[in-house]
Amino acid sequence: MLRVAQAAVGSAATLVGVTAPHGPAVVGSRTENTLAASAALELGAAHAEGCDAMLLGISTDAGLEPLRELLDIPVVGMLEAALLTACQLGGRIGLLTLGERMLPLYQEQARRMGIAGRMAGWAGIELPAAFTPQSGDAPEPAVADALAEHAARLVQDQCLDVLVLSGAVLAGYRPAVQPRLPVPVIDGIEAAAWQAVALGAQKPAAHRAGSYAPPHGRRVTGTGAPLARRLA
Amino acid sequence: MLRVAQAAVGSAATLVGVTAPHGPAVVGSRTENTLAASAALELGAAHAEGCDAMLLGISTDAGLEPLRELLDIPVVGMLEAALLTACQLGGRIGLLTLGERMLPLYQEQARRMGIAGRMAGWAGIELPAAFTPQSGDAPEPAVADALAEHAARLVQDQCLDVLVLSGAVLAGYRPAVQPRLPVPVIDGIEAAAWQAVALGAQKPAAHRAGSYAPPHGRRVTGTGAPLARRLA
Amino acid sequence: MLRVAQAAVGSAATLVGVTAPHGPAVVGSRTENTLAASAALELGAAHAEGCDAMLLGISTDAGLEPLRELLDIPVVGMLEAALLTACQLGGRIGLLTLGERMLPLYQEQARRMGIAGRMAGWAGIELPAAFTPQSGDAPEPAVADALAEHAARLVQDQCLDVLVLSGAVLAGYRPAVQPRLPVPVIDGIEAAAWQAVALGAQKPAAHRAGSYAPPHGRRVTGTGAPLARRLA
Amino acid sequence: MLRVAQAAVGSAATLVGVTAPHGPAVVGSRTENTLAASAALELGAAHAEGCDAMLLGISTDAGLEPLRELLDIPVVGMLEAALLTACQLGGRIGLLTLGERMLPLYQEQARRMGIAGRMAGWAGIELPAAFTPQSGDAPEPAVADALAEHAARLVQDQCLDVLVLSGAVLAGYRPAVQPRLPVPVIDGIEAAAWQAVALGAQKPAAHRAGSYAPPHGRRVTGTGAPLARRLA
Amino acid sequence: MLRVAQAAVGSAATLVGVTAPHGPAVVGSRTENTLAASAALELGAAHAEGCDAMLLGISTDAGLEPLRELLDIPVVGMLEAALLTACQLGGRIGLLTLGERMLPLYQEQARRMGIAGRMAGWAGIELPAAFTPQSGDAPEPAVADALAEHAARLVQDQCLDVLVLSGAVLAGYRPAVQPRLPVPVIDGIEAAAWQAVALGAQKPAAHRAGSYAPPHGRRVTGTGAPLARRLA
Amino acid sequence: MLRVAQAAVGSAATLVGVTAPHGPAVVGSRTENTLAASAALELGAAHAEGCDAMLLGISTDAGLEPLRELLDIPVVGMLEAALLTACQLGGRIGLLTLGERMLPLYQEQARRMGIAGRMAGWAGIELPAAFTPQSGDAPEPAVADALAEHAARLVQDQCLDVLVLSGAVLAGYRPAVQPRLPVPVIDGIEAAAWQAVALGAQKPAAHRAGSYAPPHGRRVTGTGAPLARRLA
Repeated sequence: MLRVAQAAVGSAATLVGVTAPHGPAVVGSRTENTLAASAALELGAAHAEGCDAMLLGISTDAGLEPLRELLDIPVVGMLEAALLTACQLGGRIGLLTLGERMLPLYQEQARRMGIAGRMAGWAGIELPAAFTPQSGDAPEPAVADALAEHAARLVQDQCLDVLVLSGAVLAGYRPAVQPRLPVPVIDGIEAAAWQAVALGAQKPAAHRAGSYAPPHGRRVTGTGAPLARRLA
Repeated sequence: MLRVAQAAVGSAATLVGVTAPHGPAVVGSRTENTLAASAALELGAAHAEGCDAMLLGISTDAGLEPLRELLDIPVVGMLEAALLTACQLGGRIGLLTLGERMLPLYQEQARRMGIAGRMAGWAGIELPAAFTPQSGDAPEPAVADALAEHAARLVQDQCLDVLVLSGAVLAGYRPAVQPRLPVPVIDGIEAAAWQAVALGAQKPAAHRAGSYAPPHGRRVTGTGAPLARRLA
Repeated sequence: MLRVAQAAVGSAATLVGVTAPHGPAVVGSRTENTLAASAALELGAAHAEGCDAMLLGISTDAGLEPLRELLDIPVVGMLEAALLTACQLGGRIGLLTLGERMLPLYQEQARRMGIAGRMAGWAGIELPAAFTPQSGDAPEPAVADALAEHAARLVQDQCLDVLVLSGAVLAGYRPAVQPRLPVPVIDGIEAAAWQAVALGAQKPAAHRAGSYAPPHGRRVTGTGAPLARRLA
Repeated sequence: MLRVAQAAVGSAATLVGVTAPHGPAVVGSRTENTLAASAALELGAAHAEGCDAMLLGISTDAGLEPLRELLDIPVVGMLEAALLTACQLGGRIGLLTLGERMLPLYQEQARRMGIAGRMAGWAGIELPAAFTPQSGDAPEPAVADALAEHAARLVQDQCLDVLVLSGAVLAGYRPAVQPRLPVPVIDGIEAAAWQAVALGAQKPAAHRAGSYAPPHGRRVTGTGAPLARRLA
Repeated sequence: MLRVAQAAVGSAATLVGVTAPHGPAVVGSRTENTLAASAALELGAAHAEGCDAMLLGISTDAGLEPLRELLDIPVVGMLEAALLTACQLGGRIGLLTLGERMLPLYQEQARRMGIAGRMAGWAGIELPAAFTPQSGDAPEPAVADALAEHAARLVQDQCLDVLVLSGAVLAGYRPAVQPRLPVPVIDGIEAAAWQAVALGAQKPAAHRAGSYAPPHGRRVTGTGAPLARRLA
Repeated sequence: MLRVAQAAVGSAATLVGVTAPHGPAVVGSRTENTLAASAALELGAAHAEGCDAMLLGISTDAGLEPLRELLDIPVVGMLEAALLTACQLGGRIGLLTLGERMLPLYQEQARRMGIAGRMAGWAGIELPAAFTPQSGDAPEPAVADALAEHAARLVQDQCLDVLVLSGAVLAGYRPAVQPRLPVPVIDGIEAAAWQAVALGAQKPAAHRAGSYAPPHGRRVTGTGAPLARRLA
């Protein structure tokens, strides 16, 4: 994901990647998603210093809203960025990801954003090959073929105007899928990287009031020191 | 809360209370709410065995949906139970709690439940006295007075038909507030205790398909053993 | 229905059944539903005295809201109770009933409750055998088979998380249908009986203001004496 | 109401008025509204024969949808007609009627119609003088003054584009109120009379399928003979 | 269209038809729709004088809302009138028109009106024969057959209660299609002609405040003189 | 606007400004907005060639959707870009602009985008001084003071989390207003310039199917040659 994101924005920004030392290996359920949100808070608290924006590299945007409260820089989510980019390219938006049971997690985020009414098609396909570590930089042709085939059917059946490819392991598949589809395809990590550049460049003021103002004077145990310090 | 809940249901059920060893002391922000959700998962994984239902004792229902996925018994939330009970007593529902910045957390839950359209009034008042440990069983008269006054104004201004008192520290205040209001008042913990009895008694089957079927075969680090075991 | 409801709540409550002397034999249209609502008002006015709660035994909840206005005890509807119970067991709710033309009546109630957005599947099947009087306590195997088959298809096609069985003559079919479905099934009358227990036990205050306060000083002709007396 | 309606449509139609022999004298609660709906069904069954359309002369449209199912001619409601007329005159619609507790009944109808999102202002004022029988054809000046004053405030406060005057006893007040308001005023009975002309003239086919097809083969007791005959 | 509209209202009104000297020949895209809206403003400004109401004869209602602002008489749209008429005949409304890519334009209007929730079925079929100039007054049998076949399928598949035939070239096809459908069919131009009669007869006051009050003191170039004069 | 936009994106893009030779001087009504949309189509058709993205410099986004259909590059609107940027900075969004009668035009766009539910506050103030040509680069202090004062009140009254400053003549006022507000302020033109960079860089494929595919084979008169050529 880091490689695809950096390639997308080129010299417009320098991206630094960090990974949680603990937590779920992959997010494939509500339970893992909740644990991932806590892990994202720890990472955000530890690494935001000195950055212009934070890009949250998890396809469900787990932890996005609390991070916006905790940090004083813009925080960008892959799902949110992809959907808001899609909103600017057409009316009826579809999302293709891996795993049918992930769909409710994405749908809840679409409702949170208030744009569920724009979503005209959802598909979560089973594609174990996509989780096999790639040998190098190139996407797996068999995975690309399966994605293109399902995407084309979704676009056709639901009269979609834009298609979002969502899921960490699908980062980088857009070039292989786009030529086989008659509507624009969006890669979540590319969209998020550019939104991070755009928001970081505008340097929005931090919240000093309301429910997004950073919490202080809070007692918490069991977290890493950076998170506890920010809450203290 | 345990005392109020047990008193509410009397001999209809025996409630056993457990508290998270780590996490935020009080939930007053999105960040603490996220950490509390993870803590609730650990508790649920460790203590569900042998119970007919689980009552989640946190006013924002943090962790409610992942717990429903993780456990094979009904899980009841204080906020959800209170609002669904209120839905059966009148058309326009209001909620009074402590702390204005908590309102978005409650409102997001109301949207998740799909009943945001029923909510006709929200208030999050500042009332530090409510957080002072009580000397005994009786609610603090000054706190009750403040609640009654704010509640009466909210009912009047928004033409409310029912009022929900929400917030862990407000458990037990209903008897002191109700006589001063012209519409029914609901105490979240009483409502939740009764929903736990009702759902537990119906013994709904566990999910064997769909996104609420318990996840298995998942790798996760940094959690307690019971949670890791359930996910394994 | 009375038998199933009493069996569901056991010793938690004593249910007393009453039936309207006049009105439609079965509700299968908007017209009959309207007449049933008036009949329910007459019954409620005549029999509420001395009860802790009233359970309205008609699958469309005809008369539910006016009864809440007319009486000073909680009034519980089979449809409403089933849907609110379902809301606590999963995200995507389905309803299976008898007769396709009944669906708009149920859907209007779901909109009134404000939870139409939770409803992910509806089916109203034609099953005349279900209306044949049963010889004893056991559900008809052929009816149970047809229900299970249609229910399984609905759950699968619409990715349902919970299924509500609705319709007076379907009371008691849950045990026969549940084993063949991978998600929890709810029987409207059981759910309603438990909600009646739960609401009755909380003893919510009567409305003294707003549109649910009992009407008085109203002139009406053509009703039974108990209803006219309550309105006078 | 009949006089105002006939004057509105002039020679475009001949209106025949009928009144229910039994039922509530005035509709001021959900209970009376339910009884009025049953009475409307009896009237409709008895008098539809030979008419091109039926105009339901009750401000809450009680019985409107079942009448559409029962009869094979168009049925027009005062509230519905007024709101749909208002929709064609501006974006933000307000409604002024008598009695605050009537508002939920109107609001439920607006939700049923699916146009609740267009409603930008509601007021139900207490104006006992409006219920005093008028000596002749002229509206009472004091009532007109009160209506104009409240209407002007509602229009101003809610930036209304159109105002609906609703309530049987307000029929005929439009000429007295309009000159004092900067936006168009709609009289429910005038709007309904014209919709009845418009729908009657188009002679829409009767429903032969779906949930609006007239019910047949239904057993019902306690109604008048014409209604029982239509259902039989 | 003029012929069908005049035949529908008979002697109730005299319709005068005008056509834009410039603009798109047919509206089949968002771009042409935008140009048509500007053309409609020019026509309205030039021809409203002396009329009781204006009927906008374009199936997408292009220019409807700005015309309501610009003119001081009621302005009626074919799509809006048809849908609001349909709302009075049943619950689930469908629309059949020519050209799938027109559907988003209709759907946006349904959302603007606030009645998108009532729309239960949409179809935009490809039927080039419909655009062939007719030899006389009679609809083309082949076109009528195709319409009836598609309409019947839409009604059946989506459980529709009413069907709207939309599209300028479909004016006059209702008599040929209705006998083959089990629910009422509405012809947009007939519905609009009657709404124009109904609104014109009520003589609603012009807007003197709010966003529909006619704009004045505006500088504009590139328009015809009548439009510039109204804006000046 | 061009100056502010170019300053915002710096070397990330080169902006070229064009202005319509005809049309309304200022958009302050629906009528002018419609004429501006047609003018935007002419400009887009004439100047898109060779650009990576088009930024539509009108605060109501007039013509945005048809331009997306007409052109094969991304088209960015000031209002849409500002609101979607705001969605990434907080939950409750407010908009402050000039002229109360402009609000319905903005609100209709928010509904079209599907994010009306995120909008928590609207204000259209009268501030003629803002339309006075500025002597140089600096915003007028009196205008900035008035904006800050109204904005602070709106933020406070509606618990806003983000505030959008909308209106062509308000471009460049953000630095003067932000210090006096406790939540981030967004300048529409800055946000749009960055979205144009972000979308242009992602080089989304053009639509080859659906309702956004460029229309061809259309006959139109009265437009400039470039627009007619694109439609031909």
